[in-house]
Amino acid sequence: MAAKVPGEPGGNAASDPAAQVHDWRVFAQLDLPPILAAALEEFREHGYHGTSVRDVARRAGITVPMIYYHFDNKQGLLVALLEGAMGEVLQRARLADAEADGRVLERFANVIECVVLHMTHRVATAGLDSELRYLEPANRKKYAALRKELEDLFLEIVEEGVTQGLFEVDRAPDTTRALLGMCQAVTGWFHADGPLPPEEIADRYVAISLRTVGARVRPAPHGREKYGREK
Amino acid sequence: MAAKVPGEPGGNAASDPAAQVHDWRVFAQLDLPPILAAALEEFREHGYHGTSVRDVARRAGITVPMIYYHFDNKQGLLVALLEGAMGEVLQRARLADAEADGRVLERFANVIECVVLHMTHRVATAGLDSELRYLEPANRKKYAALRKELEDLFLEIVEEGVTQGLFEVDRAPDTTRALLGMCQAVTGWFHADGPLPPEEIADRYVAISLRTVGARVRPAPHGREKYGREK
Repeated sequence: MAAKVPGEPGGNAASDPAAQVHDWRVFAQLDLPPILAAALEEFREHGYHGTSVRDVARRAGITVPMIYYHFDNKQGLLVALLEGAMGEVLQRARLADAEADGRVLERFANVIECVVLHMTHRVATAGLDSELRYLEPANRKKYAALRKELEDLFLEIVEEGVTQGLFEVDRAPDTTRALLGMCQAVTGWFHADGPLPPEEIADRYVAISLRTVGARVRPAPHGREKYGREK
Repeated sequence: MAAKVPGEPGGNAASDPAAQVHDWRVFAQLDLPPILAAALEEFREHGYHGTSVRDVARRAGITVPMIYYHFDNKQGLLVALLEGAMGEVLQRARLADAEADGRVLERFANVIECVVLHMTHRVATAGLDSELRYLEPANRKKYAALRKELEDLFLEIVEEGVTQGLFEVDRAPDTTRALLGMCQAVTGWFHADGPLPPEEIADRYVAISLRTVGARVRPAPHGREKYGREK
Protein backbone atom coordinates (compact mmCIF):
# COMPACT_ATOMS: atom_id res chain seq x y z
CA MET A 1 0.00 0.00 0.00
CA ALA A 2 1.43 3.37 -0.94
CA ALA A 3 1.21 6.37 1.33
CA LYS A 4 -1.66 8.61 0.42
CA VAL A 5 -0.26 11.74 -1.06
CA PRO A 6 -2.26 14.69 0.18
CA GLY A 7 -3.22 17.49 -2.14
CA GLU A 8 -0.33 19.62 -1.14
CA PRO A 9 3.22 18.72 -0.11
CA GLY A 10 3.84 18.92 3.58
CA GLY A 11 0.51 17.40 4.61
CA ASN A 12 0.51 14.30 6.81
CA ALA A 13 -0.12 10.98 5.07
CA ALA A 14 -1.91 8.66 7.46
CA SER A 15 -1.89 4.96 6.72
CA ASP A 16 -5.57 4.53 7.55
CA PRO A 17 -5.46 0.74 8.04
CA ALA A 18 -8.95 1.02 9.52
CA ALA A 19 -10.29 1.38 6.02
CA GLN A 20 -9.42 -2.26 5.40
CA VAL A 21 -11.32 -3.87 8.26
CA HIS A 22 -13.99 -6.30 7.15
CA ASP A 23 -14.00 -8.94 9.89
CA TRP A 24 -13.00 -7.52 13.28
CA ARG A 25 -11.50 -10.84 14.35
CA VAL A 26 -9.21 -11.15 11.31
CA PHE A 27 -5.89 -9.30 11.35
CA ALA A 28 -3.91 -9.28 8.14
CA GLN A 29 -0.28 -8.33 8.56
CA LEU A 30 -0.02 -4.59 9.13
CA ASP A 31 0.61 -3.07 5.73
CA LEU A 32 2.12 0.32 6.48
CA PRO A 33 3.54 2.66 3.85
CA PRO A 34 7.35 2.24 3.82
CA ILE A 35 7.99 5.57 5.57
CA LEU A 36 5.68 4.70 8.46
CA ALA A 37 7.02 1.16 8.68
CA ALA A 38 10.52 2.58 9.03
CA ALA A 39 9.38 5.18 11.57
CA LEU A 40 7.67 2.48 13.62
CA GLU A 41 10.83 0.39 13.78
CA GLU A 42 12.95 3.41 14.73
CA PHE A 43 10.54 4.57 17.44
CA ARG A 44 10.38 1.05 18.86
CA GLU A 45 14.14 0.69 18.99
CA HIS A 46 15.21 4.17 20.01
CA GLY A 47 12.10 5.93 21.26
CA TYR A 48 10.63 9.12 19.83
CA HIS A 49 13.38 11.48 20.99
CA GLY A 50 16.09 8.98 20.08
CA THR A 51 14.92 8.94 16.46
CA SER A 52 15.65 11.51 13.74
CA VAL A 53 13.94 12.01 10.41
CA ARG A 54 17.31 11.14 8.88
CA ASP A 55 17.24 7.74 10.68
CA VAL A 56 13.80 7.05 9.27
CA ALA A 57 14.87 8.03 5.75
CA ARG A 58 17.93 5.80 5.95
CA ARG A 59 15.89 2.83 7.14
CA ALA A 60 13.22 3.39 4.49
CA GLY A 61 15.91 3.73 1.81
CA ILE A 62 14.68 7.13 0.66
CA THR A 63 15.82 10.73 0.93
CA VAL A 64 14.97 13.11 3.75
CA PRO A 65 13.07 15.47 1.42
CA MET A 66 10.83 12.55 0.40
CA ILE A 67 9.74 12.27 4.03
CA TYR A 68 9.06 15.98 4.24
CA TYR A 69 7.01 15.70 1.07
CA HIS A 70 4.61 13.34 2.85
CA PHE A 71 4.88 14.44 6.49
CA ASP A 72 5.30 17.79 8.23
CA ASN A 73 8.00 16.49 10.52
CA LYS A 74 8.89 13.70 12.95
CA GLN A 75 5.83 14.56 15.04
CA GLY A 76 3.68 13.88 11.98
CA LEU A 77 5.09 10.35 11.79
CA LEU A 78 4.19 9.62 15.40
CA VAL A 79 0.73 11.12 14.94
CA ALA A 80 0.07 9.00 11.84
CA LEU A 81 1.12 5.80 13.63
CA LEU A 82 -0.82 6.46 16.83
CA GLU A 83 -3.96 7.69 15.10
CA GLY A 84 -3.79 4.87 12.58
CA ALA A 85 -3.67 2.27 15.34
CA MET A 86 -6.38 3.92 17.42
CA GLY A 87 -8.56 4.41 14.34
CA GLU A 88 -8.23 0.74 13.50
CA VAL A 89 -9.11 -0.59 16.95
CA LEU A 90 -11.99 1.83 17.19
CA GLN A 91 -13.45 0.63 13.91
CA ARG A 92 -12.99 -2.99 14.95
CA ALA A 93 -14.60 -2.34 18.33
CA ARG A 94 -17.65 -0.82 16.65
CA LEU A 95 -17.99 -3.87 14.40
CA ALA A 96 -17.52 -6.19 17.39
CA ASP A 97 -20.16 -4.30 19.30
CA ALA A 98 -22.61 -4.27 16.39
CA GLU A 99 -22.20 -8.01 15.82
CA ALA A 100 -23.66 -8.65 19.28
CA ASP A 101 -26.91 -7.11 18.10
CA GLY A 102 -27.67 -5.42 21.41
CA ARG A 103 -27.11 -8.43 23.70
CA VAL A 104 -25.06 -6.78 26.42
CA LEU A 105 -23.01 -9.79 27.56
CA GLU A 106 -21.91 -10.42 24.01
CA ARG A 107 -21.27 -6.75 23.38
CA PHE A 108 -19.00 -6.68 26.42
CA ALA A 109 -17.22 -9.93 25.54
CA ASN A 110 -16.77 -8.95 21.89
CA VAL A 111 -15.24 -5.57 22.68
CA ILE A 112 -12.77 -7.02 25.22
CA GLU A 113 -11.88 -9.76 22.74
CA CYS A 114 -11.39 -7.17 20.02
CA VAL A 115 -9.22 -4.88 22.14
CA VAL A 116 -6.97 -7.75 23.28
CA LEU A 117 -6.67 -9.02 19.71
CA HIS A 118 -5.54 -5.51 18.80
CA MET A 119 -2.98 -5.34 21.63
CA THR A 120 -1.46 -8.64 20.48
CA HIS A 121 -1.78 -8.70 16.68
CA ARG A 122 -0.85 -5.01 16.57
CA VAL A 123 1.61 -5.04 19.48
CA ALA A 124 4.11 -2.85 17.61
CA THR A 125 1.75 0.07 17.04
CA ALA A 126 -0.41 -0.52 20.13
CA GLY A 127 2.77 -0.50 22.25
CA LEU A 128 3.63 2.97 20.93
CA ASP A 129 1.05 4.19 23.42
CA SER A 130 3.96 4.83 25.81
CA GLU A 131 5.27 7.48 23.38
CA LEU A 132 2.07 9.48 23.38
CA ARG A 133 3.45 11.74 26.09
CA TYR A 134 5.66 13.15 23.33
CA LEU A 135 2.67 14.33 21.31
CA GLU A 136 2.39 18.07 21.06
CA PRO A 137 -0.64 19.46 22.94
CA ALA A 138 -2.99 19.77 19.94
CA ASN A 139 -2.08 16.29 18.67
CA ARG A 140 -2.42 14.80 22.10
CA LYS A 141 -5.86 16.32 22.45
CA LYS A 142 -6.94 14.82 19.15
CA TYR A 143 -5.56 11.41 20.07
CA ALA A 144 -7.17 11.56 23.53
CA ALA A 145 -10.50 12.29 21.85
CA LEU A 146 -10.15 9.18 19.68
CA ARG A 147 -9.29 7.07 22.69
CA LYS A 148 -12.22 8.53 24.57
CA GLU A 149 -14.53 7.25 21.83
CA LEU A 150 -13.37 3.73 22.67
CA GLU A 151 -13.74 4.33 26.41
CA ASP A 152 -17.21 5.79 25.94
CA LEU A 153 -18.30 2.86 23.78
CA PHE A 154 -17.12 0.42 26.43
CA LEU A 155 -18.50 2.47 29.34
CA GLU A 156 -21.94 2.52 27.75
CA ILE A 157 -21.86 -1.28 27.55
CA VAL A 158 -20.82 -1.65 31.20
CA GLU A 159 -23.55 0.76 32.29
CA GLU A 160 -26.13 -1.07 30.20
CA GLY A 161 -25.08 -4.34 31.83
CA VAL A 162 -25.59 -2.78 35.25
CA THR A 163 -28.97 -1.40 34.21
CA GLN A 164 -30.07 -4.84 33.03
CA GLY A 165 -28.92 -6.39 36.31
CA LEU A 166 -26.36 -8.57 34.53
CA PHE A 167 -23.29 -6.76 35.86
CA GLU A 168 -22.42 -5.62 39.34
CA VAL A 169 -19.78 -2.92 39.69
CA ASP A 170 -19.21 -0.13 42.19
CA ARG A 171 -18.39 2.53 39.62
CA ALA A 172 -18.70 1.88 35.91
CA PRO A 173 -16.18 4.54 34.79
CA ASP A 174 -13.45 3.21 37.10
CA THR A 175 -14.08 -0.36 36.03
CA THR A 176 -14.05 0.65 32.36
CA ARG A 177 -10.74 2.44 32.72
CA ALA A 178 -9.24 -0.39 34.79
CA LEU A 179 -10.24 -3.03 32.23
CA LEU A 180 -8.95 -1.07 29.25
CA GLY A 181 -5.71 -0.52 31.17
CA MET A 182 -5.51 -4.25 31.82
CA CYS A 183 -5.80 -4.86 28.08
CA GLN A 184 -3.26 -2.14 27.23
CA ALA A 185 -0.74 -3.70 29.63
CA VAL A 186 -0.69 -6.83 27.45
CA THR A 187 1.56 -4.91 25.04
CA GLY A 188 4.20 -4.89 27.79
CA TRP A 189 4.73 -8.65 27.78
CA PHE A 190 3.21 -10.11 24.60
CA HIS A 191 5.57 -11.57 22.02
CA ALA A 192 4.43 -13.04 18.74
CA ASP A 193 6.68 -16.04 19.34
CA GLY A 194 5.35 -16.61 22.87
CA PRO A 195 3.47 -19.73 23.99
CA LEU A 196 -0.07 -18.35 23.59
CA PRO A 197 -1.68 -17.12 20.38
CA PRO A 198 -3.61 -13.83 20.49
CA GLU A 199 -6.95 -15.63 20.26
CA GLU A 200 -6.27 -17.67 23.40
CA ILE A 201 -5.11 -14.61 25.34
CA ALA A 202 -8.21 -12.72 24.21
CA ASP A 203 -10.49 -15.55 25.39
CA ARG A 204 -8.80 -15.61 28.79
CA TYR A 205 -9.10 -11.84 29.17
CA VAL A 206 -12.79 -12.04 28.30
CA ALA A 207 -13.28 -14.52 31.15
CA ILE A 208 -11.25 -12.37 33.56
CA SER A 209 -13.16 -9.24 32.53
CA LEU A 210 -16.54 -10.91 32.95
CA ARG A 211 -15.64 -11.70 36.55
CA THR A 212 -14.49 -8.12 37.03
CA VAL A 213 -17.96 -6.82 36.18
CA GLY A 214 -19.54 -9.49 38.35
CA ALA A 215 -21.27 -11.22 35.44
CA ARG A 216 -23.02 -14.29 36.78
CA VAL A 217 -23.79 -15.59 33.31
CA ARG A 218 -21.41 -15.54 30.43
CA PRO A 219 -21.85 -15.76 26.68
CA ALA A 220 -21.02 -19.04 24.97
CA PRO A 221 -17.47 -18.84 23.60
CA HIS A 222 -17.43 -17.45 20.07
CA GLY A 223 -20.52 -17.71 17.95
CA ARG A 224 -21.96 -16.45 21.24
CA GLU A 225 -25.48 -17.32 20.17
CA LYS A 226 -26.44 -19.08 23.38
CA TYR A 227 -26.01 -18.02 26.96
CA GLY A 228 -25.15 -20.61 29.56
CA ARG A 229 -25.16 -20.36 33.31
CA GLU A 230 -21.58 -20.16 34.50
CA LYS A 231 -22.00 -23.12 36.79
CA MET B 1 20.46 12.71 50.76
CA ALA B 2 23.77 12.25 49.02
CA ALA B 3 24.42 9.44 46.57
CA LYS B 4 26.11 6.53 48.19
CA VAL B 5 29.66 6.41 46.96
CA PRO B 6 30.64 2.80 46.32
CA GLY B 7 34.03 1.54 47.40
CA GLU B 8 35.54 2.03 44.01
CA PRO B 9 34.89 4.66 41.37
CA GLY B 10 32.81 3.48 38.46
CA GLY B 11 30.42 1.39 40.57
CA ASN B 12 26.71 2.14 40.35
CA ALA B 13 25.19 4.09 43.20
CA ALA B 14 21.61 2.95 43.71
CA SER B 15 19.31 5.18 45.71
CA ASP B 16 17.86 2.27 47.67
CA PRO B 17 14.74 4.11 48.84
CA ALA B 18 13.40 0.74 49.98
CA ALA B 19 15.70 0.98 52.96
CA GLN B 20 13.52 3.80 54.29
CA VAL B 21 10.16 2.00 54.32
CA HIS B 22 8.62 1.70 57.75
CA ASP B 23 4.88 1.91 57.07
CA TRP B 24 3.94 0.52 53.65
CA ARG B 25 1.02 2.92 53.37
CA VAL B 26 3.10 6.06 53.99
CA PHE B 27 5.02 7.59 51.09
CA ALA B 28 7.42 10.39 51.91
CA GLN B 29 8.47 12.45 48.92
CA LEU B 30 10.96 10.47 46.85
CA ASP B 31 14.38 11.56 48.03
CA LEU B 32 16.68 10.63 45.19
CA PRO B 33 20.35 11.59 45.01
CA PRO B 34 20.69 14.68 42.77
CA ILE B 35 22.18 12.72 39.86
CA LEU B 36 19.29 10.25 39.80
CA ALA B 37 16.71 12.99 40.29
CA ALA B 38 18.14 14.74 37.23
CA ALA B 39 18.28 11.49 35.24
CA LEU B 40 14.65 10.76 36.10
CA GLU B 41 13.52 14.16 34.83
CA GLU B 42 15.53 13.79 31.63
CA PHE B 43 14.27 10.26 30.93
CA ARG B 44 10.69 11.37 31.57
CA GLU B 45 10.96 14.34 29.22
CA HIS B 46 13.11 12.91 26.44
CA GLY B 47 13.13 9.14 26.90
CA TYR B 48 16.19 6.99 27.44
CA HIS B 49 17.67 7.36 23.96
CA GLY B 50 16.82 11.06 23.84
CA THR B 51 18.90 11.69 26.97
CA SER B 52 22.69 12.04 27.20
CA VAL B 53 24.92 11.88 30.27
CA ARG B 54 25.80 15.48 29.45
CA ASP B 55 22.09 16.45 29.74
CA VAL B 56 21.91 14.79 33.14
CA ALA B 57 25.05 16.55 34.34
CA ARG B 58 23.76 19.91 33.15
CA ARG B 59 20.43 19.42 34.92
CA ALA B 60 22.11 18.23 38.12
CA GLY B 61 24.51 21.16 37.99
CA ILE B 62 27.60 18.98 38.13
CA THR B 63 30.32 17.86 35.74
CA VAL B 64 30.15 14.83 33.47
CA PRO B 65 33.12 13.15 35.21
CA MET B 66 31.21 13.39 38.52
CA ILE B 67 28.49 11.21 36.98
CA TYR B 68 31.04 8.69 35.74
CA TYR B 69 32.51 8.61 39.22
CA HIS B 70 29.20 7.28 40.57
CA PHE B 71 27.76 5.42 37.60
CA ASP B 72 29.22 3.29 34.83
CA ASN B 73 27.22 5.05 32.14
CA LYS B 74 23.72 6.16 31.15
CA GLN B 75 22.52 2.56 31.39
CA GLY B 76 23.61 2.55 35.03
CA LEU B 77 21.33 5.52 35.72
CA LEU B 78 18.31 3.73 34.24
CA VAL B 79 19.16 0.55 36.14
CA ALA B 80 19.44 2.42 39.44
CA LEU B 81 16.07 4.13 38.93
CA LEU B 82 14.20 1.01 37.81
CA GLU B 83 15.71 -1.27 40.43
CA GLY B 84 15.24 1.35 43.13
CA ALA B 85 11.53 1.65 42.33
CA MET B 86 10.99 -2.09 42.02
CA GLY B 87 12.95 -2.73 45.21
CA GLU B 88 10.79 -0.23 47.07
CA VAL B 89 7.45 -1.62 45.92
CA LEU B 90 8.64 -5.14 46.62
CA GLN B 91 9.59 -4.29 50.16
CA ARG B 92 6.29 -2.49 50.69
CA ALA B 93 4.35 -5.42 49.24
CA ARG B 94 6.06 -7.80 51.67
CA LEU B 95 5.13 -5.56 54.61
CA ALA B 96 1.56 -5.24 53.31
CA ASP B 97 1.33 -9.00 52.98
CA ALA B 98 2.79 -9.64 56.42
CA GLU B 99 0.41 -7.17 58.06
CA ALA B 100 -2.52 -9.37 57.02
CA ASP B 101 -1.14 -12.11 59.23
CA GLY B 102 -2.12 -14.91 56.86
CA ARG B 103 -5.75 -13.88 56.25
CA VAL B 104 -5.91 -14.31 52.50
CA LEU B 105 -8.56 -11.70 51.68
CA GLU B 106 -6.59 -9.09 53.56
CA ARG B 107 -3.31 -10.24 52.06
CA PHE B 108 -4.82 -9.82 48.59
CA ALA B 109 -6.40 -6.44 49.36
CA ASN B 110 -3.26 -5.11 51.04
CA VAL B 111 -0.98 -6.03 48.17
CA ILE B 112 -3.26 -4.47 45.54
CA GLU B 113 -3.61 -1.36 47.69
CA CYS B 114 0.16 -1.22 48.09
CA VAL B 115 0.88 -1.63 44.39
CA VAL B 116 -1.63 1.07 43.39
CA LEU B 117 -0.24 3.42 46.05
CA HIS B 118 3.17 2.83 44.47
CA MET B 119 1.91 3.50 40.93
CA THR B 120 0.42 6.82 42.05
CA HIS B 121 2.74 8.17 44.76
CA ARG B 122 5.73 7.01 42.72
CA VAL B 123 4.28 7.67 39.28
CA ALA B 124 7.53 9.20 37.98
CA THR B 125 9.69 6.16 38.66
CA ALA B 126 6.91 3.57 38.28
CA GLY B 127 6.10 5.07 34.87
CA LEU B 128 9.70 4.47 33.75
CA ASP B 129 8.58 0.87 33.27
CA SER B 130 8.02 1.75 29.60
CA GLU B 131 11.78 2.36 29.25
CA LEU B 132 12.75 -1.10 30.46
CA ARG B 133 12.96 -2.33 26.90
CA TYR B 134 16.12 -0.26 26.69
CA LEU B 135 17.83 -2.27 29.43
CA GLU B 136 20.76 -4.33 28.23
CA PRO B 137 20.08 -8.08 28.38
CA ALA B 138 21.83 -8.77 31.70
CA ASN B 139 20.19 -5.78 33.37
CA ARG B 140 16.82 -6.67 31.96
CA LYS B 141 17.16 -10.18 33.30
CA LYS B 142 17.97 -8.87 36.77
CA TYR B 143 15.05 -6.45 36.69
CA ALA B 144 12.70 -9.15 35.42
CA ALA B 145 13.77 -11.35 38.33
CA LEU B 146 12.87 -8.58 40.80
CA ARG B 147 9.51 -8.08 39.16
CA LYS B 148 8.91 -11.80 39.20
CA GLU B 149 9.31 -11.74 42.98
CA LEU B 150 6.33 -9.41 43.15
CA GLU B 151 4.33 -11.53 40.70
CA ASP B 152 5.15 -14.70 42.63
CA LEU B 153 4.14 -13.13 45.93
CA PHE B 154 0.82 -12.08 44.45
CA LEU B 155 0.28 -15.36 42.61
CA GLU B 156 0.76 -17.32 45.81
CA ILE B 157 -1.96 -15.22 47.45
CA VAL B 158 -4.39 -15.74 44.58
CA GLU B 159 -3.74 -19.49 44.62
CA GLU B 160 -4.20 -19.63 48.37
CA GLY B 161 -7.52 -17.83 48.01
CA VAL B 162 -8.63 -20.41 45.47
CA THR B 163 -7.47 -23.25 47.73
CA GLN B 164 -9.50 -21.82 50.61
CA GLY B 165 -12.55 -21.50 48.38
CA LEU B 166 -12.65 -17.72 48.79
CA PHE B 167 -11.61 -16.90 45.23
CA GLU B 168 -12.84 -18.27 41.95
CA VAL B 169 -10.60 -17.82 38.92
CA ASP B 170 -10.01 -19.85 35.79
CA ARG B 171 -6.23 -19.56 35.82
CA ALA B 172 -4.41 -17.91 38.70
CA PRO B 173 -1.26 -16.94 36.73
CA ASP B 174 -3.30 -15.15 34.04
CA THR B 175 -5.40 -13.34 36.61
CA THR B 176 -2.28 -12.33 38.56
CA ARG B 177 -0.63 -10.92 35.47
CA ALA B 178 -3.81 -9.18 34.34
CA LEU B 179 -4.33 -7.51 37.73
CA LEU B 180 -0.74 -6.32 38.03
CA GLY B 181 -1.02 -4.97 34.48
CA MET B 182 -4.21 -3.17 35.47
CA CYS B 183 -2.32 -1.51 38.32
CA GLN B 184 0.68 -0.67 36.14
CA ALA B 185 -1.61 1.03 33.62
CA VAL B 186 -2.55 3.59 36.29
CA THR B 187 0.81 5.28 35.62
CA GLY B 188 -0.50 6.10 32.13
CA TRP B 189 -3.22 8.45 33.36
CA PHE B 190 -2.54 9.37 36.98
CA HIS B 191 -1.59 12.97 37.76
CA ALA B 192 -0.80 14.22 41.24
CA ASP B 193 -3.07 17.20 40.63
CA GLY B 194 -5.96 15.04 39.40
CA PRO B 195 -9.33 14.78 41.16
CA LEU B 196 -8.63 11.58 43.12
CA PRO B 197 -5.94 11.06 45.75
CA PRO B 198 -3.84 7.88 45.56
CA GLU B 199 -5.60 6.38 48.58
CA GLU B 200 -9.03 6.66 46.94
CA ILE B 201 -7.78 5.16 43.69
CA ALA B 202 -6.15 2.32 45.62
CA ASP B 203 -9.39 1.58 47.47
CA ARG B 204 -11.33 1.48 44.21
CA TYR B 205 -8.80 -0.86 42.61
CA VAL B 206 -9.00 -3.16 45.62
CA ALA B 207 -12.77 -3.41 45.09
CA ILE B 208 -12.37 -4.00 41.35
CA SER B 209 -9.68 -6.62 41.94
CA LEU B 210 -11.75 -8.48 44.53
CA ARG B 211 -14.49 -8.88 41.93
CA THR B 212 -11.93 -10.06 39.40
CA VAL B 213 -10.99 -12.98 41.64
CA GLY B 214 -14.63 -13.70 42.34
CA ALA B 215 -14.38 -12.89 46.05
CA ARG B 216 -17.83 -13.17 47.56
CA VAL B 217 -16.73 -11.64 50.84
CA ARG B 218 -14.44 -8.68 51.16
CA PRO B 219 -12.29 -7.34 53.95
CA ALA B 220 -13.51 -4.31 55.84
CA PRO B 221 -11.90 -1.20 54.37
CA HIS B 222 -8.59 -0.43 56.09
CA GLY B 223 -7.95 -1.75 59.56
CA ARG B 224 -9.37 -4.79 57.84
CA GLU B 225 -10.02 -6.52 61.15
CA LYS B 226 -13.54 -7.60 60.34
CA TYR B 227 -14.95 -9.30 57.31
CA GLY B 228 -18.37 -8.35 56.08
CA ARG B 229 -20.63 -9.97 53.55
CA GLU B 230 -20.50 -7.92 50.39
CA LYS B 231 -24.25 -7.31 50.44
